[in-house]
Formats: sequence, C-alpha cells, structure tokens
Amino acid sequence: PWVENKQPRQAHLWTEEGPTMQRNGNEGNAPVRVAIDAMGGDFAPQEMVKGAVQAIDSLNAELILVGDPGPVHDELSKYDIAGKPISVIPSEGKIGDDEHPIQALRSKPKASVVVATQLVKQGQADVLVSMGSTGGAMASSVLALGLMEGLERPCLGGPFLGLAPNTVLVDIGSNLDCRPGLLLSFGALGAACTQTYMGIENPRVGLLSVGSEAAKGNRQVQESYQLFQDSHLNFVGNVEGMDFFTDKADVIICDGFVGNILLKFTEGLGGALADFLKKHLSQVMPEESVKKIASNLWETTNRPRTVGGGPLFGVNGAVILGHGSCRADGVAGAIRTACLLYTSDAADE
Amino acid sequence: PWVENKQPRQAHLWTEEGPTMQRNGNEGNAPVRVAIDAMGGDFAPQEMVKGAVQAIDSLNAELILVGDPGPVHDELSKYDIAGKPISVIPSEGKIGDDEHPIQALRSKPKASVVVATQLVKQGQADVLVSMGSTGGAMASSVLALGLMEGLERPCLGGPFLGLAPNTVLVDIGSNLDCRPGLLLSFGALGAACTQTYMGIENPRVGLLSVGSEAAKGNRQVQESYQLFQDSHLNFVGNVEGMDFFTDKADVIICDGFVGNILLKFTEGLGGALADFLKKHLSQVMPEESVKKIASNLWETTNRPRTVGGGPLFGVNGAVILGHGSCRADGVAGAIRTACLLYTSDAADE
Repeated sequence: PWVENKQPRQAHLWTEEGPTMQRNGNEGNAPVRVAIDAMGGDFAPQEMVKGAVQAIDSLNAELILVGDPGPVHDELSKYDIAGKPISVIPSEGKIGDDEHPIQALRSKPKASVVVATQLVKQGQADVLVSMGSTGGAMASSVLALGLMEGLERPCLGGPFLGLAPNTVLVDIGSNLDCRPGLLLSFGALGAACTQTYMGIENPRVGLLSVGSEAAKGNRQVQESYQLFQDSHLNFVGNVEGMDFFTDKADVIICDGFVGNILLKFTEGLGGALADFLKKHLSQVMPEESVKKIASNLWETTNRPRTVGGGPLFGVNGAVILGHGSCRADGVAGAIRTACLLYTSDAADE
Repeated sequence: PWVENKQPRQAHLWTEEGPTMQRNGNEGNAPVRVAIDAMGGDFAPQEMVKGAVQAIDSLNAELILVGDPGPVHDELSKYDIAGKPISVIPSEGKIGDDEHPIQALRSKPKASVVVATQLVKQGQADVLVSMGSTGGAMASSVLALGLMEGLERPCLGGPFLGLAPNTVLVDIGSNLDCRPGLLLSFGALGAACTQTYMGIENPRVGLLSVGSEAAKGNRQVQESYQLFQDSHLNFVGNVEGMDFFTDKADVIICDGFVGNILLKFTEGLGGALADFLKKHLSQVMPEESVKKIASNLWETTNRPRTVGGGPLFGVNGAVILGHGSCRADGVAGAIRTACLLYTSDAADE
C-alpha cells in the first residue's frame, strides 16, 4: 500500500509477455530491514539520520544507516536511540548529482549507495532507500540487483497527485530521451506495478499526448502509438493533460523529461495555490481552519514530498528513490513507504 | 493589455537581431474591426455567433462573421442585433481538426478561416479570431500575412496561469517537434512580445528543463542551451517546473508538446482543486462564499479559457487563436482579447 486507498487484492502477477514484479518477501511479521543511503541527499547525513530516528518508533523495521562512520555517528549521537533497531554500516564517500553515474561507480566502489545496494543484493537488507543522485542509485541498483528480463532500463514512477491517487505516471524523471520501445517498457512496468500494488486488474494504459486521436502527438508518441496498440497491454490510446483527472487511464506514460516537469510544476502550483487560498480565506475564516485547508491542499499537490519517494521499477529488488531536497519528514516518509511497499509485497507470498 | 496587470509602457521594439512586433494600429478611437472565423471551433457556428453577440455591447468594435451564410444567418436570427455593428461575409466550408492544413488550404480556398485571414491581409479587418483548427489557422495566417523576417514558423504563447500573470510560456501547442533553432526563435518572439505588450524591458528568458545546471535536460534542451547562451537574448539558463512560481524568468521556452500538456494539465488540475475546495469548505463556510472562491480558483488556473485565446506570434498581422472547445463565453473573451491586443498595439503608434 504505497497509495492510500489501495483495494484489497490477490496476488495478480503479470502473466503474459510483460515483466512480473519481484517479490522477495520476508516471513510474516519479521521487521523490514531498510538499508538507508545516509550520505545521499542535499541535507545528508543530518536529515537522513534525523528522518530515520523519526521513523523508527512507528515501524516494525530495522534501519541500517550506510555512510561515512564519523559524520553518521556524530549525527546519531544527538538522539537517544538506546535499544532502538538502528545500526550503522560504514562506507566511503558518496556519488554526487553532478557526477557521471557509471564513472562514479567505478571510481568510488565503496560509496554509500553502492554499499547499501550490496546489502540488499546479499540479503542483509530487504529494501534500499536513497535520496541521493538518481542516476547513481539507478546505476548501482541495475548493476547489483539486475534488470528484469527483457528490459533495457529501469524507470521511476508512481501516483504523483493526491487528487488522482490511483493514476500512476511513468516516467517521472529517470529517462529523459526515450525511444518508443523504452516507452513501451514503461507501459509494461507501470501496468505490472499498478496491478501488483494497487490491485487494479488489467490496468488501462494511456500515452500522454496533445490530443486523443492516434495521429496527434510529437514524433515520439506517434511512433509509440502503434507499438502500444500491438502490445498485450490494455492500451486506451492517447490521453491529454487534463486526463489525470478524468479517469481515462490507470497508467499514464511519458518520457522522464515531460514527467519531471509535470511533477515539479504540480509541486510549485500547489505551493502557489496554498498561498492563494490563505489570502482569500483569511478574511472569512479562522486562521487555524485556513492553515489546515492550505496544508491539506499542499499535501494533495506535493504527494511525492509527503511520501518521500517512489519505487524504482524494473530492477530485481525493492528500491525507493526520493527527492534530494527532502528534509527529515520526507526521509521518514520514504522509509515508511519502503516498509509498506515491502510488506505489501510480502503479504502475498 | 492582454494580461491584467500590464505596466504603463513606451514602445519598446526589439532593436537587435530579434524580430520586431508588427503594429498596424488604427486611428485613435476607431472601432477595431474583428474578422471572426464563424465556422471554426467544436460548437460552431452556434457558439461563435452567440459569443460575438455577447461581446459586441461592451466593445468599440465591428464584428465580421465569416462563414457559410445559411447557418450563420440562422444563428444570428435568434438575437436582436438591429443597429449593432455585426456583419456577415460568406465563405464555403471549414478546415477541420483532422485535415492536413496545407492540403486543406489548397482544396478549400474559400474556407472560413481563409476568407477571414484575407480580410486582414486586404486591410478590411484589423485582427483575426479563430477557434478552429490551429494548424489551419496558422497555415492560413502564414500564407496570407507572411512570416516575420528570419522566422521559420510562427508559434503560440502567452501567460497561461492566473497565478503567474507575467510569465509567458512559448510554445503552447503549435509546434510539437522542435529543433534548437526553432526553440531559439520562440525565445526571440516571446521576448519581443513580452517587451511590447507587458512593458518588461529586456525580459529574462529561460529554457524549461529538469534541472537548473547547463548539462541538465534532454538532448533537445542540451543542444539549445548553447544557442541561447550565444544569442542576444537575456538568457537566464534552465528553469524547472516550479519556476513558473519563482519569478526566475519572464519568458519560459519549451516545445509545443510539453507546453500543451502543461496547459491542459493546469486546466484539469484547476477543475479538480475547485471540487476539492468545495468539498472541504462547504461545511465551514456559506455556500455562496465557497462558490466564489472555487470559481476564482478555476479562473486562476483556466486563464486561457477565460481570455478565450492568445496571439499567434511571428506573423505580420494580428491573429488570436483560441480553444476549439470554447463556448460563447470563451469566444466573447477571445474577441475582447483581440480588441485589447489591437488597441494596445495602436496606442503606441
């Protein structure tokens, strides 16, 4: 249940040509072991450690902070974690946003995200959480955990709007230039995830475009249309920007350039609208109520920040990638999301 | 003043290499002669005629409805327009959304949009308003009115958000696949228009991307970056989705695929948020106030529908293109926008 209103479901794995979801669930009520890239993120390790401490009490989890031991222990020493299942595993350095992921993996084989991914690979952790370089975390996950069969690249996606909690957008920023075949694999992954995690049988897949007719769209979408049409997916054709709100599709496919712009635009708009509301309501309502509604609106449009991160689709393992700009709240949200995702996986085993 | 909070301004024409705005102003307080493509739009001619009748009383304008005379007169006969400056000029047929613009122009040389554009070319009208096929109206405008020097294609743009009324987005759907040189011409046109109509001196131009660093973006943006950097534009680098709300740029450039998705997404989101508000506020506020705030929010996010349309940048003449789905209110808005745009042009002559 990494979405709020998940329906009760059975294990619906993708049975045709598409990918099936990896499910490496644990036994019953065993705590979920979360490997946390403590050095990744704009405010690491401070906010990573703070977020972990914040999350631990409400979860049945073991948190493993992977990072430069000095700074991580310094941060941990600020909190009373006696008896709490938080441990530190040392690593050396981090992969920055400005580094080429593959080169960085080679030159920093002990970087935090690499060591954390290895823990998942070796079965010492169940799920990885990183708010560091998306490229670095993706490359590390692909190399260590492997790609699902037939896939060329993994992708990031998820329901990104509180107003449309059942509509999954893929890709939200991990692949910027996409050939039609790559978009098709996003469709298959998005459908498989929607089916697995949201219990939607045979999810409707739409291609994001500028008109609903088959001929509408840029070259990329026009070329992709036929591929989608010929696939085993439940393809409902092109959808448009307003169709995030019209329930025409469960999964909406676009390249990561468009998806990332939409994601950030929505967050910005949510903030601006919350301000707009405060201004308009403050004269007619008590301040407390105004605040509540505005923050409700903000959360509705800033869902990724609230849940902290989303799953990486297409790798053989559970990986949650989050916003680099997250503070402790977002980090705690990502850790919670990781546990929920993993438990939801495990529940069907 | 096709934006609300226009500043007082002088005639700032683009004086360097960029395009200058065409200004074919009329004499002082003469009525603006608006040629209306009465057959273009999803609800033509009914809503086109109704919108014209609705607009006429509040404007110093002469409205020329161009369309199949039978249906247009039938619609007009529903209203009392005795003594009002509304006339009909006959044409034959229309260019549909599903037709190839250039082929359609050849096979239907008397189509409504063609005849209406000719009126502008021949000086019998000051400005064209069409809610019909965007491709058809663009092609007709380019062929009849001509492109500004050095341009390859015209484009559509404008401030599309009530929340960011001074931020102009180009292109909003007229050019889906854009090479870097075309994006650069959008930048020059957007800057020229922003300077001319909004009185912003040396407007800041940003490229819409997924990160602010020069290396961030898809191939199209990466290749465009250097072109923008080397141009005479006041280029502020890459901007992101949230930067519509951060005042980093006056003009934001993207291809029409991304722009159109953003436009429609915003409209859909505005509608969904208005519903969200109604639900949340109806228990704590009188219904009338809730309605007012929700409709205020809708208008804020559905600006293009309120103003009905935006100018076509880059042709030698005044052309307003609007949403095909507009009803009479939107049509009246587009006619008002046309008059304001034209008067604003004329005021500086």
